[in-house]
Amino acid sequence: MKAVVLEKKGLINIRQVDDPPAPGPGELRIAPHTVGICGSDLHYYTHGRVGKYIVRQPMILGHEASGTVVEVGEGVEGFKPGDRVAMEPGIPDMNSKAVKLGMYNVDPAVRFFATPPVDGCLCDLVNHPAAFTYKLPDSVSFGEGALIEPLAVGMWSATKATIRPGDIGVVVGAGTVGLLTTASALAGGCSKVLVSDVSDVKLGIAAQIPGVIPVDVKREKLLDRVAQETDNWGADRVFECSGNTKAYEDLWKLGAPGNTTVIVGIPADGVVPLDVTEVQGRETTVKTVFRYANVYQKAIDLMAAGKINVKPFISKVFDMDHAVDAFDQVAEARPEDVKIQIQVAD
Amino acid sequence: MKAVVLEKKGLINIRQVDDPPAPGPGELRIAPHTVGICGSDLHYYTHGRVGKYIVRQPMILGHEASGTVVEVGEGVEGFKPGDRVAMEPGIPDMNSKAVKLGMYNVDPAVRFFATPPVDGCLCDLVNHPAAFTYKLPDSVSFGEGALIEPLAVGMWSATKATIRPGDIGVVVGAGTVGLLTTASALAGGCSKVLVSDVSDVKLGIAAQIPGVIPVDVKREKLLDRVAQETDNWGADRVFECSGNTKAYEDLWKLGAPGNTTVIVGIPADGVVPLDVTEVQGRETTVKTVFRYANVYQKAIDLMAAGKINVKPFISKVFDMDHAVDAFDQVAEARPEDVKIQIQVAD
Amino acid sequence: MKAVVLEKKGLINIRQVDDPPAPGPGELRIAPHTVGICGSDLHYYTHGRVGKYIVRQPMILGHEASGTVVEVGEGVEGFKPGDRVAMEPGIPDMNSKAVKLGMYNVDPAVRFFATPPVDGCLCDLVNHPAAFTYKLPDSVSFGEGALIEPLAVGMWSATKATIRPGDIGVVVGAGTVGLLTTASALAGGCSKVLVSDVSDVKLGIAAQIPGVIPVDVKREKLLDRVAQETDNWGADRVFECSGNTKAYEDLWKLGAPGNTTVIVGIPADGVVPLDVTEVQGRETTVKTVFRYANVYQKAIDLMAAGKINVKPFISKVFDMDHAVDAFDQVAEARPEDVKIQIQVAD
Amino acid sequence: MKAVVLEKKGLINIRQVDDPPAPGPGELRIAPHTVGICGSDLHYYTHGRVGKYIVRQPMILGHEASGTVVEVGEGVEGFKPGDRVAMEPGIPDMNSKAVKLGMYNVDPAVRFFATPPVDGCLCDLVNHPAAFTYKLPDSVSFGEGALIEPLAVGMWSATKATIRPGDIGVVVGAGTVGLLTTASALAGGCSKVLVSDVSDVKLGIAAQIPGVIPVDVKREKLLDRVAQETDNWGADRVFECSGNTKAYEDLWKLGAPGNTTVIVGIPADGVVPLDVTEVQGRETTVKTVFRYANVYQKAIDLMAAGKINVKPFISKVFDMDHAVDAFDQVAEARPEDVKIQIQVAD
Repeated sequence: MKAVVLEKKGLINIRQVDDPPAPGPGELRIAPHTVGICGSDLHYYTHGRVGKYIVRQPMILGHEASGTVVEVGEGVEGFKPGDRVAMEPGIPDMNSKAVKLGMYNVDPAVRFFATPPVDGCLCDLVNHPAAFTYKLPDSVSFGEGALIEPLAVGMWSATKATIRPGDIGVVVGAGTVGLLTTASALAGGCSKVLVSDVSDVKLGIAAQIPGVIPVDVKREKLLDRVAQETDNWGADRVFECSGNTKAYEDLWKLGAPGNTTVIVGIPADGVVPLDVTEVQGRETTVKTVFRYANVYQKAIDLMAAGKINVKPFISKVFDMDHAVDAFDQVAEARPEDVKIQIQVAD
Repeated sequence: MKAVVLEKKGLINIRQVDDPPAPGPGELRIAPHTVGICGSDLHYYTHGRVGKYIVRQPMILGHEASGTVVEVGEGVEGFKPGDRVAMEPGIPDMNSKAVKLGMYNVDPAVRFFATPPVDGCLCDLVNHPAAFTYKLPDSVSFGEGALIEPLAVGMWSATKATIRPGDIGVVVGAGTVGLLTTASALAGGCSKVLVSDVSDVKLGIAAQIPGVIPVDVKREKLLDRVAQETDNWGADRVFECSGNTKAYEDLWKLGAPGNTTVIVGIPADGVVPLDVTEVQGRETTVKTVFRYANVYQKAIDLMAAGKINVKPFISKVFDMDHAVDAFDQVAEARPEDVKIQIQVAD
Repeated sequence: MKAVVLEKKGLINIRQVDDPPAPGPGELRIAPHTVGICGSDLHYYTHGRVGKYIVRQPMILGHEASGTVVEVGEGVEGFKPGDRVAMEPGIPDMNSKAVKLGMYNVDPAVRFFATPPVDGCLCDLVNHPAAFTYKLPDSVSFGEGALIEPLAVGMWSATKATIRPGDIGVVVGAGTVGLLTTASALAGGCSKVLVSDVSDVKLGIAAQIPGVIPVDVKREKLLDRVAQETDNWGADRVFECSGNTKAYEDLWKLGAPGNTTVIVGIPADGVVPLDVTEVQGRETTVKTVFRYANVYQKAIDLMAAGKINVKPFISKVFDMDHAVDAFDQVAEARPEDVKIQIQVAD
Repeated sequence: MKAVVLEKKGLINIRQVDDPPAPGPGELRIAPHTVGICGSDLHYYTHGRVGKYIVRQPMILGHEASGTVVEVGEGVEGFKPGDRVAMEPGIPDMNSKAVKLGMYNVDPAVRFFATPPVDGCLCDLVNHPAAFTYKLPDSVSFGEGALIEPLAVGMWSATKATIRPGDIGVVVGAGTVGLLTTASALAGGCSKVLVSDVSDVKLGIAAQIPGVIPVDVKREKLLDRVAQETDNWGADRVFECSGNTKAYEDLWKLGAPGNTTVIVGIPADGVVPLDVTEVQGRETTVKTVFRYANVYQKAIDLMAAGKINVKPFISKVFDMDHAVDAFDQVAEARPEDVKIQIQVAD
């Protein structure tokens, strides 16, 4: 079959690789249709590693995928060839302590698409556990289906934030994760969400989500605007999505007494300042997220209901033969590009 | 001043009464503009009592009110004459144990508009604590403002349900409380809400809320439809809003494993059957609500954001001189009437 | 190997059966040492069924077991022959939706020891998943280890009750489940627990747990005593452990505003009265439990720490050859018998 | 009346001051019996300020107090002269938004004993709201009663930690707050708590609390010991009580997947490092505390039940005439001194 293979740092080939074996018990064989490119895919390409994960042998890229079931393994119920699906890319050890606790996402033994040495799904065929595969309704396109993976990060952040109906939210950073967290927080009960960024272009995209108040931090202080929009009380729920250490200067002052602040963004150097005076004074709860758990079906349901619309976030779709061009465009990091995807199947 | 006075069971007069005294410290003097009629108002009129509360002397009716600030008491900040406001009608003893615990709604000492012997607000002037008064933005009309009180019941139910983004809800009963709970649950994060009733008319009104799946229980079984809409898993959040003992036959089977079921409706005879086998088998959490707490501002914010639209629920507005006609129309209990209001001021 | 086999309703034989096969991947072969007799074991013996579970073929009884590892299956880490262990008897389908949600106990596909047609562990050898096996420290005897299973019901009830340090608890019913729930609630943070029963003998056993206030409901009203012990506020956490419909008359009045009431006992006829007026008036949260999840290790830790002492609850231990006598003593239901156990190994 | 007056930085006089006026509505007149010295009292003495609170005029010191009711103000129920009581020292504006939300401790308008310009209670008589006064049972001495205030910090930390029965805890720092948090965490459900410090003396005091595992971080790494005591899983609940920035190096690695870490200690410079990689990887929840709310009665109940024993923490009691000596001993900061108290009344 054909696959997008990262041979080593800096070199991607679209070439033939062996087909996967027949699907095992509990597995589906799936033909990926559309696969989005994630920052981590790019980083493996440009740096040959992400943190402790190092590319030591050729690896198929891609983990944000929708596709079509082509074969059903032993013991699988509820799926048949032809079903349109999205794949949740992280597969835990189902006998682990984390799984028993309902935290399968933090199981240290998770195998995740395109995380060395595990192959990704930018290829013609993959086997995937039915338990981590979700059917797409007709109203959700393959392109939208491939966006469920990054949306799941936003959904999980909004879920862990325990939003109450009518809460006022703040999302710091209007990148892909910020936009999808914003959409999730609004679908999840916020009356309005202030979204801050330094990019007019990104704020313009954010402003397409009903309920967003874009805040250009080049022109006004986010803290002031939050005070103004909340009658000087502070925001109920705050989402740090920029991963920018500088954002932490005011971050801990944005929330109201009893607020919950969720750390979604991954800072480059890992460590950020925590202002204990500020968080103790308002008894802030800080929540953290690692990927996501149990939100795929809910994300699909919100898309199908029209409460989350990711179509404006699909910036460009390349075909398989132009996969390298797709990666190169992601590398450009243009503010107007939210998500670049590759269409694998016709 | 003029007031709608329930003289005794069955007799309402629109007549002159004494003005209230000057507002005390922390109080506002407010001129009510629009007041909705609640089932309890009607019940005092038709039965002279609601449960243990008995009308023993003439009482001004009404507790669902918006109005205009006319005078500001000592020590009040943030309000000025002319402010358009909604009034939260239950005032607790602020030194009570319940208040210290953040449960001011269940303080036994609560004084509530139009609950004997406390007068209501269907009159020209009332004094009200600023701490329980909320400013209305220009985009929220007086009519909508007077609907915040019953909406608050739905908001509180949706809040206590701890809805997660994308949850599937069920609301049993499409009366006023059911409709407002449905609107709150959808604004609060549900992807869709199945609403059941026996009345085509009421289901037609419910169906105007985006995200509602009306279920006519004369034609199909709610339990079957829930199974169908949830892939046989059950609903995540269930709201009993009918107060009908018969609804409890299937109620405990509607929820998924780990579901939360909220008892919103008040059954006529107080006691209903709890099927322990069903609730233990799925480890249901049952939440209960008594009026509401801390949701007025959030309800206003959701209205202002367009995420809750109560305009279709204002069925008819009478003027003060026709207040008795208003009560008589409420007494008819026509399925097409959601909320009848009385406009007090011009 | 030797086993205690329920041949059919009313007939138990201690006889030879086939050894289990070699342990599969992830499994341990365990020699049970001590096995407690549960009400369900007795009920299969006396009635041939428990609810929908019917004994249609000979079945080995017993599910409350400690034992010794004798062989370690492929891929198992952390266990070796000779390890003293307790076995959690319910094994879910690890690919189920319930497991992914952390609610493995409510997975409909759970296989549970001695629940037809699954054999129990009153025999010389069983295979059991390592993921559901827990090592016993030296300070916990085999007899105590066999009590972890019923204790787990109490632990799970106390866990789901979200007890805050210093809460005042009430446990209705001083049977085995009531006693173990009481011990868990006190270890879990209650300052004191009022335990009610009609049996002096049972209350005397309860009174051995430090922190218990026994309430003989033949002599005083539980509701009055709760009022007295809580300054008329009501109990913070209430546990219904009697399964007695009569207990529900006052049950809903025992809790304070904002209380949590946990339904632990299984009523004979399944349905009990829920007083909506009472639970709404205090905004009671009703929690329900089905067996338990993720509490075995914590129960062991509390035993090892001396914070839960189950030794007084081991009323009598029979040897394997007198297993039928053990069942017959359980059938007598003497108030002084909390738990009867059978020692399988030497 | 006689009072311990901080005239200005560095100068305390025990001298006559005016009696308070008659108690107002809802107030009690109380004769303090025993008053503990807090680090903040000392800091006002030695530095003339604590953060933004500056001593600009003579101020009576002391806020950790027990005493006896001598007069009952208008409208107060449930108290009579002679009642032995403890006083909660922070009084919020009961009409504030924070109070309505049940977070009276974070109300910005709180008036707190001995926080400039509010006088403390190291004097013969104070007026105090009955709503913030708690009766002491006979089994709780005045000395213990005066320890409820600092204990309340530990109680609130243990409460916000949402400890589940059998959780394994870690407390970093065995100072007064660390010890009282440890006692609260163990009473609140922990099976064991590892307590770390650099002082042998302090660890020796900690070790008197049943369930404590003292960890001398001069001799072993806390992280290693936690791994050993938790089978390499990490602690369920972590409490930072040292306020030492250095403690944050390993702090974020101590918790298990899904752990809750509570920031109790107040770091000298306010800002500490937050290792996002570590907290995201285990999805840590960080909780923060500011004083306490709604825990006084529960602390009293746990003391009365013998589940929290603070007697070993009363290191020395001075009489009123030697109050300055008491402050000077606190200033020495000897490791064996946990709490120094002053007895005001006979």
